[in-house]
Amino acid sequence: MKSSNKSYKELEEHFGRLLALREAAGLLHWDASTMMPKGINSSNARSEQISAIATICHEIINDNKISDLLDEAENLPTLTNWQTSNLREMRHMWIHETAVTKDLVEALTKASMSCEAQWRISKGDSDYTTIKPYLKEVLKLVKYSASKKSEVLNCTPYEALMDQYTPGLRETTINPLFKDFENFLPDFLRAVLEKQASEPQVNKPTGPFPIHQQKELGHSFMKMLGFDFREGRLDVSSHPFSGGTPDDLRITTRYDLNDFTSSLMGVLHETGHALYEKNLPKDWRRQPVGLARGMDVHESQSLLIEMQACRSREFLSFAVPLMKRAFNLNGPEWNTENIYRLYTKVQPSLIRVDADEVTYSAHVILRYNIERSLILEKMTLDDLPGMWNENMKKMLGIIPTNHELGCLQDIHWFDGAWGYFPSYTLGAMNAAQLFNSAVREKTNILPSIKCGNFGPLYDWLIENIHGLGSLYETPELLERATGQPLNAEIFKQHLISRYLN
Amino acid sequence: MKSSNKSYKELEEHFGRLLALREAAGLLHWDASTMMPKGINSSNARSEQISAIATICHEIINDNKISDLLDEAENLPTLTNWQTSNLREMRHMWIHETAVTKDLVEALTKASMSCEAQWRISKGDSDYTTIKPYLKEVLKLVKYSASKKSEVLNCTPYEALMDQYTPGLRETTINPLFKDFENFLPDFLRAVLEKQASEPQVNKPTGPFPIHQQKELGHSFMKMLGFDFREGRLDVSSHPFSGGTPDDLRITTRYDLNDFTSSLMGVLHETGHALYEKNLPKDWRRQPVGLARGMDVHESQSLLIEMQACRSREFLSFAVPLMKRAFNLNGPEWNTENIYRLYTKVQPSLIRVDADEVTYSAHVILRYNIERSLILEKMTLDDLPGMWNENMKKMLGIIPTNHELGCLQDIHWFDGAWGYFPSYTLGAMNAAQLFNSAVREKTNILPSIKCGNFGPLYDWLIENIHGLGSLYETPELLERATGQPLNAEIFKQHLISRYLN
Repeated sequence: MKSSNKSYKELEEHFGRLLALREAAGLLHWDASTMMPKGINSSNARSEQISAIATICHEIINDNKISDLLDEAENLPTLTNWQTSNLREMRHMWIHETAVTKDLVEALTKASMSCEAQWRISKGDSDYTTIKPYLKEVLKLVKYSASKKSEVLNCTPYEALMDQYTPGLRETTINPLFKDFENFLPDFLRAVLEKQASEPQVNKPTGPFPIHQQKELGHSFMKMLGFDFREGRLDVSSHPFSGGTPDDLRITTRYDLNDFTSSLMGVLHETGHALYEKNLPKDWRRQPVGLARGMDVHESQSLLIEMQACRSREFLSFAVPLMKRAFNLNGPEWNTENIYRLYTKVQPSLIRVDADEVTYSAHVILRYNIERSLILEKMTLDDLPGMWNENMKKMLGIIPTNHELGCLQDIHWFDGAWGYFPSYTLGAMNAAQLFNSAVREKTNILPSIKCGNFGPLYDWLIENIHGLGSLYETPELLERATGQPLNAEIFKQHLISRYLN
Repeated sequence: MKSSNKSYKELEEHFGRLLALREAAGLLHWDASTMMPKGINSSNARSEQISAIATICHEIINDNKISDLLDEAENLPTLTNWQTSNLREMRHMWIHETAVTKDLVEALTKASMSCEAQWRISKGDSDYTTIKPYLKEVLKLVKYSASKKSEVLNCTPYEALMDQYTPGLRETTINPLFKDFENFLPDFLRAVLEKQASEPQVNKPTGPFPIHQQKELGHSFMKMLGFDFREGRLDVSSHPFSGGTPDDLRITTRYDLNDFTSSLMGVLHETGHALYEKNLPKDWRRQPVGLARGMDVHESQSLLIEMQACRSREFLSFAVPLMKRAFNLNGPEWNTENIYRLYTKVQPSLIRVDADEVTYSAHVILRYNIERSLILEKMTLDDLPGMWNENMKKMLGIIPTNHELGCLQDIHWFDGAWGYFPSYTLGAMNAAQLFNSAVREKTNILPSIKCGNFGPLYDWLIENIHGLGSLYETPELLERATGQPLNAEIFKQHLISRYLN
């Protein structure tokens, strides 16, 4: 027995080192987005460094030793639940890493880094032709990787890609969900727009809102949520994200001198991500079971904070006075109800990250349909801009006037993150269901948020989600927390209640 | 033949990846000093990440394959000079990495990181007792590592440590040099102090000098020297340093609101380091022979810029008007001759990094004597503060009033960089000799500097030092560039000429 448990312990060591290396690579990515000089040589060098780490990670996990240890440990009779789940997660990582060759990993890392660097330029020029050859290379490698993984996972290539970010997610789950929402949206959106058009005009506070004041306001809201600046930072990047490690959280935003609202909600969104990381089980730090449970759950945590909690009347009644004070401004536009209506205003628009809660999912479903078609070879990159515009027209009734506002707006495809987009809308659905359960179970959550106290909400989240890491697979995690499987009706009900009632 | 050259090519691949990983670790270090939050958990996590990379590097080079490939490649008849030198440098790295076990490397990395983190606190508290146990652990591991390496290198343990930073340096070279300078200094220092006391008072411009203006001035001087901000940054850290890669240079400084002079010279110093990196041979990027030639040569490049070029009357006659304009100040203290005398003022003081050119070497020799005694077990850590103060008294006639100003001031020992200090004074000697040759050989160097044009100087440096990377060992490099071996008389003559004539 003792000698068998050795296999498990050895696995913990190997994966511990692997995850330390991934953390290092994560910091290199953060730096590339926030601090790294803009020269192409700098980013080429960074590609080499990240690629070297990715190759090492690939080698660690591809070592035959790991395969033997996994086989052995999976048959151990005396593992705890956490250890068993840790093995399950190790196996999942192992499957994804061993399905592809080192050369492919290396090539994909490098191609993505080059493509991302070129994307920053092409996006600025709104030029699809200069990025297309780079994107073609990335797509080729992604497709190849997807086909390899699909063989082992016994699923479609597109499912294999989603499985990297949302383990276990298959089209049988997501297709009906998205189809249903596509059907729900047009009438609902029309009703919301009509209702809002019939109401008095929303008054948007006018700036300028000095950047240092926006930053200070963001900091104070982050602290209110529980962000500890002794173990984290807020910086600027062109594409906001949450990175770092549980003990060194790195979130980013971007500021608009004439509009503080979007940066502020962005900061709250990323803080939601960051605090999930912070509250992951410390005993399982740098072990697969100690990691966040897939990107759909991750996105649920950011959207639960941003959309469910912070766009509520309860929170805004507390927050609006702080906003006024931060900018030393006053006037009727700072009325809480007006700000609430501003933050829940629905308006079909071109940019996903600026989209309101109702139309956001349309952006995601558009991308889902396109990337799925590209991976399954139902369309080619030549069709991409046209398909984009056509679907924007169909779903939201608007067409981008240039590619920067269209198919070049998101980093994901250019960065190699294919199969990621569905996480956003799944996250929104999870968030609605989780928040709904939380506030029903703990009746002091909403009253506390009204006083700027997120303690009770986080107590519930830590107990039901954060502190569990990857102990349970996503469906079980959600069912344990809410008493039922993913139920998209709750999200729709939330939308109806917030936007039509 | 073809199949044998394969061994050399394979070595290039392995070392290429190794150096990419080292670059990654370098960025993690830079971030730890500039951006990382101050929480102890953040720095512990960073230790894990850096330690994981160090372990991987150790494993790559310790693979038996490398040993076989080196043996094979060293016998190849058809290598170019560059390839032969590349093999020599690979072998040197191999010796240092294989002399110690993985466990020792890992332990030393972690101990150094923890000690450095604690040092930041203890230094602030000026408390030797809280840092001593950490330092003891580092010293124990450094000594063990030194003894292991000394066996393979067939030298003393202290020489084995120096060999990490200044390959090939032995006590037979350095002891007489330092002894000679120790003998030269007292009378010379007395004469300089007497001379300067007999001259009119130096007027120090009084601040405040707003940080953003200091930063702008630093930037403009860096650009003048040839620093390209598309491939580099200037940031703030408590201990200024130069890091990054040739295509992504990261230098740091610290600002004093009431004194711009020291930050500015610090920036010029670090720029000297950075441009050496930038100008290393691009064809040999990420190969051992393409790396800088030891820390004594590195320091010669920073001191050549800071001490030889930028404290010259020629440069200051150009630079002082820019300084005045940067701060929008005027007055008699901004007279070039006054600023020259300010920048060449000699005054025994407690802090090495703030020391003038004359007393600087006393700081280095003091540290050299102490660290050598600690490694060779001629004293213990209990004696350190006393020995420090006693020697400061003996060499410079002053005693620190607390440990922050004394034995806690430098990061090196706490960071594990034992055997590094001699590089500084060797660098100063090299710098004097190189500059002396450069200006004699190219008579337009000084007149150009007088116009803010460092082009001719850098042409000479690139041809004679930078562009050669590690092609030649240090003594040969210096002799090829200057026509003679290291000659400390040139440094002394420089001091006599600048400070007594």
